Amino acid sequence: MILYYTPHTCALASHIALEQAGADYQIRRIDFAKNEQRSGEYLHVNPKGRVPTLVTDRGILTETPAILTFICQRFPAARLAPLDDSFSFAQVLAFNSYLCATVHVAHSHRMRGSRWADDPLAIEAMKQKVPQSVGECFELIELEMLQGPWVMGSNYTICDIYLFTLAQWLEADGVDLARLPRVTDHRRRMSENPVVARVIAEELGATQ
Amino acid sequence: MILYYTPHTCALASHIALEQAGADYQIRRIDFAKNEQRSGEYLHVNPKGRVPTLVTDRGILTETPAILTFICQRFPAARLAPLDDSFSFAQVLAFNSYLCATVHVAHSHRMRGSRWADDPLAIEAMKQKVPQSVGECFELIELEMLQGPWVMGSNYTICDIYLFTLAQWLEADGVDLARLPRVTDHRRRMSENPVVARVIAEELGATQ
Repeated sequence: MILYYTPHTCALASHIALEQAGADYQIRRIDFAKNEQRSGEYLHVNPKGRVPTLVTDRGILTETPAILTFICQRFPAARLAPLDDSFSFAQVLAFNSYLCATVHVAHSHRMRGSRWADDPLAIEAMKQKVPQSVGECFELIELEMLQGPWVMGSNYTICDIYLFTLAQWLEADGVDLARLPRVTDHRRRMSENPVVARVIAEELGATQ
Repeated sequence: MILYYTPHTCALASHIALEQAGADYQIRRIDFAKNEQRSGEYLHVNPKGRVPTLVTDRGILTETPAILTFICQRFPAARLAPLDDSFSFAQVLAFNSYLCATVHVAHSHRMRGSRWADDPLAIEAMKQKVPQSVGECFELIELEMLQGPWVMGSNYTICDIYLFTLAQWLEADGVDLARLPRVTDHRRRMSENPVVARVIAEELGATQ
């Protein structure tokens, strides 16, 4: 398999999951600074012009929640999701859907406001609200969703990998970490995982 | 099971799926005009203050992609997703994730701009871009994603139910339907399904 990624994006989640699953894969970097995600070559791989894209023997997959679920099902021995319990599995999907459609979207208004308005003043107004909107998302996670010690309680899942990935952006989004002691503790524990540390080092090293 | 819904929202997808699966369920209407989604009673059910919420014997589920997947897995005889093929299943999840995190989000900038900016002029600027941003999403679906006759090809899935649900909003979003002949044909075929027609009539009837 081949994972197309860009450092500092949500593609990190798929990268960590592949590594934790013991998958046989390669990574290929897409350089946003060179607008490679809009190049004809990459649009041929993924017409959405975004990362991540996972190339499999059956075709391509996009969208972090789908790629993470695919990795769980293709590598069941890694036990990254409760595959045999439809309710618990749906809880995993619900958490990841919230990260994808609400938390990541709130974050995206800091640097991708041009998706939703043309007026530069409107785009600036979106940036200004990011600390509040992203902060409120993470407070809901802190208070209602993160069961502890892992997102789904005692079992480590793809939810932990995905939450950790989005939590990378908290400082840059201007969120007050003092209000998120459980989220920041979760992030610290994740970062101490040797597999996670190795994947991050590999992504950052590849940017040089 | 109990489905909390509001007419004209994405909760329609879960409602149609429950009906098509032959589930035993009740519906309860949340009135956005009365701000019931922010009432203490409803926030106790779903702290996110949104619809849909599905109350099951194991607890609550939120997020349309998760609820739809749950219904598929709980009622496998309805054959609403390729449960035995991890790649095809991930393709279903990827399509639904795109609808949830990109298409629905683009639409939401018409009426929910206050989530992402406070300045009334910025909120107005967001509204103005909705015909373009939602239109571009549906053109990608039209050209790249809708395999035909159903989203995933020959097999009808939850992707069809979810696409139909979001396609309800095209006219109000100001999208040029002439550029979407395949999407509008899909919508027409879905609306002629007696189960779909019955669910819509029930939701609209319950608003009286």
